[in-house]
Amino acid sequence: MDEIITLDYGSGGKKTSELIDGIIVSALSNDALSELSDGAVVNGAEKLVFSTDSFVVSPYIFPGGDIGKLAVCGTVNDVAMSGGVPKYLSLSFIIEEGFPTAALRRIVASISETAKKAGVLVVTGDTKVVERGRGDGIYINTAGIGFLKNPDLSPKNLRKGDVVILSGTCGDHGAGIMLARNKSLAEGEILSDCAPLNALCEKLYPLGDALRVLRDPTRGGVATTLCEFAESSSLSIELSEEDIPVRGDVRAVCDLLGLDPLYSANEGKLLAVVSPDHADEALRIMKSTEEGKNAAVIGHVTSRSVGKVYVKGEFGSRIVTKLTGALLPRIC
Amino acid sequence: MDEIITLDYGSGGKKTSELIDGIIVSALSNDALSELSDGAVVNGAEKLVFSTDSFVVSPYIFPGGDIGKLAVCGTVNDVAMSGGVPKYLSLSFIIEEGFPTAALRRIVASISETAKKAGVLVVTGDTKVVERGRGDGIYINTAGIGFLKNPDLSPKNLRKGDVVILSGTCGDHGAGIMLARNKSLAEGEILSDCAPLNALCEKLYPLGDALRVLRDPTRGGVATTLCEFAESSSLSIELSEEDIPVRGDVRAVCDLLGLDPLYSANEGKLLAVVSPDHADEALRIMKSTEEGKNAAVIGHVTSRSVGKVYVKGEFGSRIVTKLTGALLPRIC
Repeated sequence: MDEIITLDYGSGGKKTSELIDGIIVSALSNDALSELSDGAVVNGAEKLVFSTDSFVVSPYIFPGGDIGKLAVCGTVNDVAMSGGVPKYLSLSFIIEEGFPTAALRRIVASISETAKKAGVLVVTGDTKVVERGRGDGIYINTAGIGFLKNPDLSPKNLRKGDVVILSGTCGDHGAGIMLARNKSLAEGEILSDCAPLNALCEKLYPLGDALRVLRDPTRGGVATTLCEFAESSSLSIELSEEDIPVRGDVRAVCDLLGLDPLYSANEGKLLAVVSPDHADEALRIMKSTEEGKNAAVIGHVTSRSVGKVYVKGEFGSRIVTKLTGALLPRIC
Repeated sequence: MDEIITLDYGSGGKKTSELIDGIIVSALSNDALSELSDGAVVNGAEKLVFSTDSFVVSPYIFPGGDIGKLAVCGTVNDVAMSGGVPKYLSLSFIIEEGFPTAALRRIVASISETAKKAGVLVVTGDTKVVERGRGDGIYINTAGIGFLKNPDLSPKNLRKGDVVILSGTCGDHGAGIMLARNKSLAEGEILSDCAPLNALCEKLYPLGDALRVLRDPTRGGVATTLCEFAESSSLSIELSEEDIPVRGDVRAVCDLLGLDPLYSANEGKLLAVVSPDHADEALRIMKSTEEGKNAAVIGHVTSRSVGKVYVKGEFGSRIVTKLTGALLPRIC
């Protein structure tokens, strides 16, 4: 292999085979992928969950992870939030000419490690190379197939009195990326919370109907996700500001940038809305896991108005709206 | 909607909803997609075919199609070549800041039309926006799920004496793109052959074991695909140059550029290897369809040597190897 990826590696010919065999398949090897056919044949199930995300995060290596880890976690989590047990991933690269081969190896290793941790197989893929100046290092798409386990998760299930639980601290990934891009802001670094949440979700599925909805608050943060819940359910959500767990360093970086942690992206947290009689159990389940050890009840569903989110803080109650404008492009 | 896509549309907030609801979901509407959850819940099957491709073709609108049509055909065809009846697609955009909204509408319309033609549903998606100069207008990823119908298609099935059939003229897409990029080469334009081939494949599946392998010769062309067949099977393939259908305008453009149509990409053609006793039937089936009306037997599997492809032409027999180097970046 050359030290950088040239356009030749995207030709579909010898160099493409070299890249795929030498870097990608060797790191991710499994029977379905090794066939290197146009498509992978895998076992199915009666009901499937299907999801996709493209990842364009900048920088592509950041404290706590890289674009490869993020690309696995993002899609695994989307499948899990929809009630599916994630099984298979597709993996597609758009690489900019000149990208260092060593960085690609590192990213693929990270994909391999995260897929193992999440218990999913990368079974099919694709690689394209674009000219210098037509990309930004590397973009990754993953799509995921899961087998449906919890068939009825939807914000439409919300009822007055339901409890809103956040599985941990708010806004870590967004603050980590912001600090990585603006190193002059503060010393040190903030680790992204990037993590697969499917194991945690599988522990919550037995709650059945009491589990109304799950969602990972990525782009747009906790605020935007809860606004979507409120809109879909035609109910309101009232949050208690002091109950929302925010790390000190995350709050400091957000303050420096004049941002609200409620809008900062998370990549290893979930929001669960649970019926009041099962809220304690849900919280206990979350706290028993590494990913959910800082879980907290942050609010409740009310009928105060239609489709609004309120935050009760030190100086009264304010309305929170969906993110407007690009708080931070290329956060994921 | 604004007239161009700004970074705001990738924020995950209000503008993102506007783009997704106003342009994407409205054009592709179906029950699964309209849920706008992180993942779509769809019906499954015992065995699935799963495939993905990212599309970076330049120009993104070309004679005979656009990147949207290509993104549907490419993945539908990959699923079909692996023996699957394609059912569901995911759809993910990476849009460069400044991209015209009207072009996005056209591309989405084209995705909608092609998906209808192919009988697949777009059930889940994602949209990212990157800064000006970090992309090239628009890149699209699709992943596809199919239900397995023909379980054993592989170049490993090839036997001495098997017949190689190409479903139509060779190299149209590649030549069309080259001419579109170099308008000074010749007058007029060459239409890409870009088309979904799943209906044709479904007609071939009843051939059972007699159908050894199917593959769409995209990047790297007919030559590279046949080299892969020969390598996997440890047999040889002998082609007869005069039997390979090449359109006059495609040959002319390839001649002007000093290229061999055998390496020029196809996006609406398939190579089928069939047992000798079923070759006539396979050819008849292909010729009975619009997509396969120019199908032709172009060669045979032999044991002349291990893993080589020969082309018998006017001046004797030459060996064809896999494409080396970037014949043409961003052909698909």
